[in-house]
Amino acid sequence: MTGTADRSGRPPTIYNVAQAAGVAASTVSRAFSRPGRVNAETAERIRRVATELGYRTVPASPAAAGTRTSMLALVVSDVTNAFYAEIIRGAESAAAEAGYVLLLIDAQESDTLERDSLRRALPGVEGIVLAGTRLPDSAIRVVAGQRPTVVLNRDVADVPSIVLDDACGMRRAAEHLAGLGHRAVTYVAGPEASWADGMRWRTLRESAANLGRRAQRIGPFAPTVAGGRAAADRLRADPPTAVVAYNDQLAIGLMLALQSGGVRVPEDVSVIGFDDIFPARIVSPGLTTVAAPLRAQGRAAVHAVLAHRGEPASPPVRPMPLPVRLIVRDSTARRRRTHVTAGRGGPGRT
Amino acid sequence: MTGTADRSGRPPTIYNVAQAAGVAASTVSRAFSRPGRVNAETAERIRRVATELGYRTVPASPAAAGTRTSMLALVVSDVTNAFYAEIIRGAESAAAEAGYVLLLIDAQESDTLERDSLRRALPGVEGIVLAGTRLPDSAIRVVAGQRPTVVLNRDVADVPSIVLDDACGMRRAAEHLAGLGHRAVTYVAGPEASWADGMRWRTLRESAANLGRRAQRIGPFAPTVAGGRAAADRLRADPPTAVVAYNDQLAIGLMLALQSGGVRVPEDVSVIGFDDIFPARIVSPGLTTVAAPLRAQGRAAVHAVLAHRGEPASPPVRPMPLPVRLIVRDSTARRRRTHVTAGRGGPGRT
Repeated sequence: MTGTADRSGRPPTIYNVAQAAGVAASTVSRAFSRPGRVNAETAERIRRVATELGYRTVPASPAAAGTRTSMLALVVSDVTNAFYAEIIRGAESAAAEAGYVLLLIDAQESDTLERDSLRRALPGVEGIVLAGTRLPDSAIRVVAGQRPTVVLNRDVADVPSIVLDDACGMRRAAEHLAGLGHRAVTYVAGPEASWADGMRWRTLRESAANLGRRAQRIGPFAPTVAGGRAAADRLRADPPTAVVAYNDQLAIGLMLALQSGGVRVPEDVSVIGFDDIFPARIVSPGLTTVAAPLRAQGRAAVHAVLAHRGEPASPPVRPMPLPVRLIVRDSTARRRRTHVTAGRGGPGRT
Repeated sequence: MTGTADRSGRPPTIYNVAQAAGVAASTVSRAFSRPGRVNAETAERIRRVATELGYRTVPASPAAAGTRTSMLALVVSDVTNAFYAEIIRGAESAAAEAGYVLLLIDAQESDTLERDSLRRALPGVEGIVLAGTRLPDSAIRVVAGQRPTVVLNRDVADVPSIVLDDACGMRRAAEHLAGLGHRAVTYVAGPEASWADGMRWRTLRESAANLGRRAQRIGPFAPTVAGGRAAADRLRADPPTAVVAYNDQLAIGLMLALQSGGVRVPEDVSVIGFDDIFPARIVSPGLTTVAAPLRAQGRAAVHAVLAHRGEPASPPVRPMPLPVRLIVRDSTARRRRTHVTAGRGGPGRT
């Protein structure tokens, strides 16, 4: 029961110690950092197991260690999007448990920057997670031909991917709006190069049509708060009664800009986002959104990459899309019979 | 004028091409990804320069490249704190410009996890930025003895550091509250192991005393939204009129929990945070906070690490603390003469 330490030849991790001692990793952590907070017998057992496994809490000198750093690369398109923080946390913890460290590449929404960083990272890593990529399919296949690669939220032929159930999310959003009496919905699109954006727009349009509702699309916009503000500029003169945005950042920027222009959310316009990032919970009004299991997705991606280590490329199995759910907060409300001009008072939700 | 390409022997980066062609990196990016959007003559010059420098936009096979990946490690204590996203963005862009990739270590507020990941990362990296570390000074010096290391927001003897002007920030906060008539302020403390936490509490207390005001401290709390909710539980029975929190996440958690318990912000309690993370702008009421130049700090840290490459350890020069400023939003207001019981109505700001 010494975890990956024996199988891989890599130095044991805190998780190996925890597993062998039958305790949580956090208990191992406390046993070394604040021994007074751990039961004396447990602390003693942890120390004994750690010694047996050769676990060291002080960084070894690189010469003495003589081991290569085992690394995976994680590519995100914009590290300042809270969406990625959750994916990074999930990927990091899964990587650490397996004795790996994560090389982070922030593409800053530029495919050239992304290629550039990938080229430099590739020699050092054993696998790659493309959490947010703006590369064309052909370039992704080139990468996947060199290292085990998993793509998130995108379907690339011959490359394993982990996607969300976008269709289910958009269906729920359309049903929610139809249930509130909205007759049409406007989709605020994200980046053109995003596979998920195309998927969300198509499935929203289909779901609306199945409910006898109209759907239209504006964009593309940058998937950021600034992008949402730009979308608000387009919508302000004649706002629709209901909007679904590609992601929460766009939705939040849109809401804030509409409100500062005198358009009320949700009284005049209902707004739905996608992701359920932390800011969606604290913005006012709270954002109704399609919640994605971001940490789980990050973990699953690392597990999938590690499962392909050292294997020849095999035709990937299409995984089941990860489930999403609609979280209803205060940014959506019943459609009002008469559309009130921006900034005018009037009755609240009916 | 071929940038680092000639000096270092590393493959040229997009920044080398941009510099040699006399254009912005984003223009180089567009010239390759969307040639139609770049002036034909400029695109031609960029392609010629790229060819001359041996710049490749498609990832090379690792065997063909034959180069080691040049890496720096960046340690953060909690990647889901928006504070770190900005530091990561700054560090990543500075590293990419120098031809480096960043190895990200998310310590998840555990010093044992942090040691564990550092131990695995160390052999592969040329330098280390400890953006948020829970290690004791002694362990930091061990790390710094092995690789050029820069610590953020902490003063460790013999190790270069980049700190914020916490004292100035706390002075501004104390003056702002005193100007609004508050006679006392409660400091909501962050983690015990945080150097910046001790600094902020001491300088807030001194600043308050100099203004003839009282200061008290509660905590420590985890520097998270959940930590802020825990602090609200402690304060709800007899809330102070003014609170300064260790960071924005604590402040936001505190505000949300106070409000949901019927305590009004800012009418009953004024709240000030620290960092100016993105959620501070969208929470309701908008959070008054001490704004830190986070991206600049991330960039400066990488530049400082690279400046120490290959040098023997030299006594570090104490850098000037980076300037901060108080951003006044809607979470602070004039102290009311009579303290109103939680949840009761009453006049607004006076």
